[in-house]
Amino acid sequence: MKAPNPDTFRDTDDEARALARKLISEARFCAIGIVIDGGPFVTRVALAPTKDALLTLVSDLAAHTYALRAKPDASLLVGEPGKGDPLAHPRLTLQVHARFREKTEDLKAAYLALQPKSQLYIDFADFHLVQLEPKEGWLNGGFGRAYRLTPGDLETPKT
Amino acid sequence: MKAPNPDTFRDTDDEARALARKLISEARFCAIGIVIDGGPFVTRVALAPTKDALLTLVSDLAAHTYALRAKPDASLLVGEPGKGDPLAHPRLTLQVHARFREKTEDLKAAYLALQPKSQLYIDFADFHLVQLEPKEGWLNGGFGRAYRLTPGDLETPKT
Repeated sequence: MKAPNPDTFRDTDDEARALARKLISEARFCAIGIVIDGGPFVTRVALAPTKDALLTLVSDLAAHTYALRAKPDASLLVGEPGKGDPLAHPRLTLQVHARFREKTEDLKAAYLALQPKSQLYIDFADFHLVQLEPKEGWLNGGFGRAYRLTPGDLETPKT
Repeated sequence: MKAPNPDTFRDTDDEARALARKLISEARFCAIGIVIDGGPFVTRVALAPTKDALLTLVSDLAAHTYALRAKPDASLLVGEPGKGDPLAHPRLTLQVHARFREKTEDLKAAYLALQPKSQLYIDFADFHLVQLEPKEGWLNGGFGRAYRLTPGDLETPKT
């Protein structure tokens, strides 16, 4: 995506990469934006940032599931504000490609390790595991600290 | 907007209206979704739900400001999760029309009463007060508790 104000971005450094990876690894939910009928629509999904994939579990009843089946482009917002000015806290917009995955035992186990409460409904036929593959990141580390990140910048080193 | 699964919605009652109004009145920030180049994009803005208007303050450096000037449709997500399953906590999607307002003293004072830290930059020429006018609400009160709300349902009674 073209930046409306390219001059506002700093050069990506290790500090920015580390902050972005931290925001992803700590996230257990996010806002997810999709396009429905040409307009924006934002809901919430649970997140499991496993070591191999960023996963969510979605229901057929949800508007985002319907939208992602039609077009797999989504935008996520992670990084929750603490006290004080909400804009002083770091947040990360992740532009992702959503890929519906088979609910294998391995993938379910990886999801449930980070989202244990989902045990109650992960096996329901109308719930689906979806991998969210980052295409681009827009990090806002607080006022005047904006960065554009590549998938390579965002990838948490494998353990 | 057409609901993908109209059967999933309950009839709106006073409890749903009260919950939606509470989520709005307690919000001091939200995720905001806009459409850029035909795709979704989600960022964060500060919110001031004053008694007369739902306000935000945006910078010319932000992608959402650029997008809202081009097309004033946005989608907001309010209602922050507590502990446990993030999907068990209520949240509200607000479909809004964004209207750039003049920074009058009255409007600034109303905004600052709820966002006092913004005093530092509200007078900067590249910051703008924007009124977010609800057109529709999608309330998810937790599993199986979905409602569609009208602007009338969402309006907090005037004091």
